[in-house]
Amino acid sequence: MNISKPYLLFLGDAPDLLAVKTATGLQQWCAPACVGQLRLPGCAPKLDLPELSLQQAKQCGAKTLVIGVVNRGGVIPDSWLEILNQALVLKLDIASGLHTRLGDIPSLHDSVTHSGSRLHETRHPQGPFPIATGQQRSGHRLLTVGTDCSVGKMYASLAIHKALTEQGITADFRATGQTGILIAGGGIAIDAVVADFISGAAEKLSPSSDNNHWDIIEGQGSLFHPSYAGVSLGLLHGSQPDWLVLCHEPTRTHMRGLADQPLPDLTTCMATTIEAASLVSPNVHWAGCAVNTSTMDPTRAQDYLEQLGNTLQLPCVDPLRNGVSDIIRRLPLTSTH
Amino acid sequence: MNISKPYLLFLGDAPDLLAVKTATGLQQWCAPACVGQLRLPGCAPKLDLPELSLQQAKQCGAKTLVIGVVNRGGVIPDSWLEILNQALVLKLDIASGLHTRLGDIPSLHDSVTHSGSRLHETRHPQGPFPIATGQQRSGHRLLTVGTDCSVGKMYASLAIHKALTEQGITADFRATGQTGILIAGGGIAIDAVVADFISGAAEKLSPSSDNNHWDIIEGQGSLFHPSYAGVSLGLLHGSQPDWLVLCHEPTRTHMRGLADQPLPDLTTCMATTIEAASLVSPNVHWAGCAVNTSTMDPTRAQDYLEQLGNTLQLPCVDPLRNGVSDIIRRLPLTSTH
Repeated sequence: MNISKPYLLFLGDAPDLLAVKTATGLQQWCAPACVGQLRLPGCAPKLDLPELSLQQAKQCGAKTLVIGVVNRGGVIPDSWLEILNQALVLKLDIASGLHTRLGDIPSLHDSVTHSGSRLHETRHPQGPFPIATGQQRSGHRLLTVGTDCSVGKMYASLAIHKALTEQGITADFRATGQTGILIAGGGIAIDAVVADFISGAAEKLSPSSDNNHWDIIEGQGSLFHPSYAGVSLGLLHGSQPDWLVLCHEPTRTHMRGLADQPLPDLTTCMATTIEAASLVSPNVHWAGCAVNTSTMDPTRAQDYLEQLGNTLQLPCVDPLRNGVSDIIRRLPLTSTH
Repeated sequence: MNISKPYLLFLGDAPDLLAVKTATGLQQWCAPACVGQLRLPGCAPKLDLPELSLQQAKQCGAKTLVIGVVNRGGVIPDSWLEILNQALVLKLDIASGLHTRLGDIPSLHDSVTHSGSRLHETRHPQGPFPIATGQQRSGHRLLTVGTDCSVGKMYASLAIHKALTEQGITADFRATGQTGILIAGGGIAIDAVVADFISGAAEKLSPSSDNNHWDIIEGQGSLFHPSYAGVSLGLLHGSQPDWLVLCHEPTRTHMRGLADQPLPDLTTCMATTIEAASLVSPNVHWAGCAVNTSTMDPTRAQDYLEQLGNTLQLPCVDPLRNGVSDIIRRLPLTSTH
């Protein structure tokens, strides 16, 4: 999957900002690639981007219309079809992370056949994927892992990738989820791959590279989440990381979506993760801990991070508040500047 | 998936016995449900079953033609189509574990539309599957797990299920692989489910049941196999076992298919498995160890089993040579006779 930038962000008739978090993520992490937004009548949220028609966006160089809104059930309502068809007529590609496949909608199928545009369905990975081999690969790989789902793994990965790039290190952000894939312009929705190929897809996503090159791999789920641990373990093995960053949200009272499931103890979680990773990465290390303290006031957050750092003897930061320089300082970096 | 018995076993033009191991598995584990075999010209292997035409099989009560042969690439050769189409005309169902979908072959698609027969594609699970909840379920569940792939998990599960049933215990064999599904007449090919739903599919496969009921769940892969561990972990969590049986093949020199990957130490493997299982099964126990000693002479096999039993302080048997009574003696069984 190779999604052409720049993007026009389609917000549809979204009811609130939460419904367009794909669009806000894109605006935050690849602003220069977002030429504008397109909102339908009734759309409540508004981004700090020019409002453009399809024609205007095309004139600004847009290559892909990105559906930056999610709705209940992941369906494509009829009210979007006129815009989507027009986009194809104008030879824009369309990228979607919704459940419904764009290509399954007859009018879009017809339009895309005529225009030669591409439909990118980020929720439906394009195989075939190989069975994982576990063979040792060259280059550096850092994987973010979590105590739970939705604790900031994508954010931490992107922040680390950005910080490395700013230091002149050659690095790729390897996306494994919908939003990450749109930000990177490619990747594999690892939780949508057939079970037998989880690790194989992860191996394909972060291939052998130059010895000084870093792949920063977006983690998914948690080894301690009963719904998704298989995905997390397959991704861990396939990624063959030599460095890990633990992502955590300290105010969670239970695992996301499971009211009866407690969060793992951090040191247990770290020991289990290292043991599992060492099956394919005998020299794997912790680089640090990325804590999402967004629900804590600054003083409490700083106290928590200091205490955790003392306990774990590792850099513990909130990437949003503190940046990630403490974490990447631990990595064996070789600048190519 | 609910596959109607009895079966007519189709061996195609198989070159040798290994190519028809699905058929031999069925003959071994559900002989009364196998009315006969159908071999094409050039088929080398021959089972100890009547050779029947489609019409004869129909007269003997056959409900389903089972493709009991695998070939390179899992395709359906043109030379099979006449028989498969005739089977549908005679209103037989067809079950296949091949990669190619029967329903994707135009002539079969047409025939099945006319006849009203059913096509069972065991390699393509029929969803939708739920996201796993990890909620505690009633009834007993025993899962077989392995140090590696292909070490006898299906055999051990079937042997335990048979022994329980013979003692008057109500039990179901829950199949997670192709051959197991045909033997059971249903199940879910867990490695073919989309990654996000591995555990959810496993929960669906072994639902809450009576307190005295046992589900004997066929394990897949190994937590220590870098290609498939994600499948094994998702199945472990979704199965929520209260009892585990470790399956092992002691003469393996490396993990199946991966020449550089050593086998796990048995006690490490057991500790890791218990730790992972306890996320959803706080009271999980080992029932014993099922060892495939088929490559060892009887004396060496018996020595090995005794030594292993002393080390692990658990019943260690070869189900084929010794039966599984030592293992099921450890289970809290309540006969309903």
